[in-house]
Amino acid sequence: MSIAETGEFGLIARIVARLEPGPATLLGPGDDGAVVAAPDGRVVASTDVLVEGRHFRRDWSSAADVGHRAAAANLADIAAMGAVPTALLVALCVPPDLGVAWAEELSDGLSAEAAQVGASIVGGDMSASPTLTIAVTALGDLQGQTPVVRGGAQPGDVIAVAGRLGYAAAGYTVLSRGFRTPKMLVEAYRRPQVPYEQGPVAARQGATSMIDVSDGLLQDLGHIATASVVGIDVHSDAFPVPDQMRDAAAALGVDPYQWILAGGDDHALAATFPPGVPLPPGWSPIGAVHEGTGVTVDRKVWTGVKGWDHFR
Amino acid sequence: MSIAETGEFGLIARIVARLEPGPATLLGPGDDGAVVAAPDGRVVASTDVLVEGRHFRRDWSSAADVGHRAAAANLADIAAMGAVPTALLVALCVPPDLGVAWAEELSDGLSAEAAQVGASIVGGDMSASPTLTIAVTALGDLQGQTPVVRGGAQPGDVIAVAGRLGYAAAGYTVLSRGFRTPKMLVEAYRRPQVPYEQGPVAARQGATSMIDVSDGLLQDLGHIATASVVGIDVHSDAFPVPDQMRDAAAALGVDPYQWILAGGDDHALAATFPPGVPLPPGWSPIGAVHEGTGVTVDRKVWTGVKGWDHFR
Repeated sequence: MSIAETGEFGLIARIVARLEPGPATLLGPGDDGAVVAAPDGRVVASTDVLVEGRHFRRDWSSAADVGHRAAAANLADIAAMGAVPTALLVALCVPPDLGVAWAEELSDGLSAEAAQVGASIVGGDMSASPTLTIAVTALGDLQGQTPVVRGGAQPGDVIAVAGRLGYAAAGYTVLSRGFRTPKMLVEAYRRPQVPYEQGPVAARQGATSMIDVSDGLLQDLGHIATASVVGIDVHSDAFPVPDQMRDAAAALGVDPYQWILAGGDDHALAATFPPGVPLPPGWSPIGAVHEGTGVTVDRKVWTGVKGWDHFR
Repeated sequence: MSIAETGEFGLIARIVARLEPGPATLLGPGDDGAVVAAPDGRVVASTDVLVEGRHFRRDWSSAADVGHRAAAANLADIAAMGAVPTALLVALCVPPDLGVAWAEELSDGLSAEAAQVGASIVGGDMSASPTLTIAVTALGDLQGQTPVVRGGAQPGDVIAVAGRLGYAAAGYTVLSRGFRTPKMLVEAYRRPQVPYEQGPVAARQGATSMIDVSDGLLQDLGHIATASVVGIDVHSDAFPVPDQMRDAAAALGVDPYQWILAGGDDHALAATFPPGVPLPPGWSPIGAVHEGTGVTVDRKVWTGVKGWDHFR
């Protein structure tokens, strides 16, 4: 059955019937607005949009996969502020000939990813469009913590990462060359494994800055360097290359560090911690902050691509 | 200059430089997430998406007009819960050959509409897309009030409306027939005049249900009737037809009540009040709630179009 047959309200009713309210949902979908708990008197909010052909392909990812990725991109932003995600709102633009099942499975993927952190879909909108587009807004709760921004890194701080780097980019390359294996890399692209809980952990441990790695580690650390007016040096020996990634890189003729240092979409968290502060379990040191500007690798300018700009 | 030339981050930087923080903005654009005040421990949230060719045309509306309309659609949803809007997040999908000036003016329109209620743009995202798409999320503050939902109408309640009905639909018809006048109707389509402040006013006055008229009065009252499990009768003599609308309707061969009863996009507020409660200034009675189901006009089934479904 296509969405043209159910109509806008028919599809919305079918999707809403599949949703489960989360603990922060005071009023869920079905009204002009949702009401979400914001117990400390503040709410963290972030928006990320996925466009078919640019952020996902229906022949590479199932509808549920796309839902997981769309939710992950947004939930990771909330975690990177040091907050716990509470709610998602989803604006879905779909070609009228799209199957209803696709939209339902997308919603299931979004819900399942959100449920990992106790969040849920509380509202949304739907429109026909020639271009399948998913715009998600995530809300979060700082639980009394000061938000961890990009501009707080200090010379002498340690840079550390929680989560995976390069896996999703490797999976993307594998798929773009027409392969479907190694499964581990392809799955990493389809459903990123994001260490959401490490965002609030880092905030409580005194992280001075934090960002989620969505556009590539060096590019995203560049945002911290610019906002904090510091230089950042990354140590390449801090990144062990997993065997499967090394083998895939050799087979595809790619430098695996290109994936690790410049690949996005794993939504690892990168943060800076003051010197002497023990890194929380799950965090690995990858470099240091110094006086200066820009991001270097082993004190040298990185000559490869640093990350992804959706217009270039 | 096109967006392909500035790139994603270049355009974001240009737009962010134009934004002014509002009173609820604790942390504005430029980080992974924004932080917005939610003083009563709850936040109202709503999302609405506008797709070029379906919700707006660039030859009918300026970029600033589209910004005003996109903001209005979202801010009206917040008002219809009885809340005061505090913040907008904007996901913008643009063809790379779009002019930078268009995106900047869009942002100015969004900001100007939001500023009318003290809200501001606190975050967003941007992507290239073949289809120009604007997904906006609005946040709001209930200021201690109970949210006014669709499901609270009771038999015996009075239905009242604040704001204009049919003006935007008339302007839409005028434009779709290739005309640019009457200016008053065309401008009503381009920049709806929404009585945002009447949402919280109605909440304080004890409104039992409320909705913003975005898809057509009868269709939107149908949502209240369904959610409240009541019948609603609208009195057609409650809607004086303004002279300019009557003249335009005659010239175009349209029944003006089609615009008034089934036209959306003015974002009037419709609410139900208990019998005997004085209607606040700015609200006009238009009908009554009774036991039963569905929406009638002068106790008869309305045989015209009731509203707008984006897939039909």
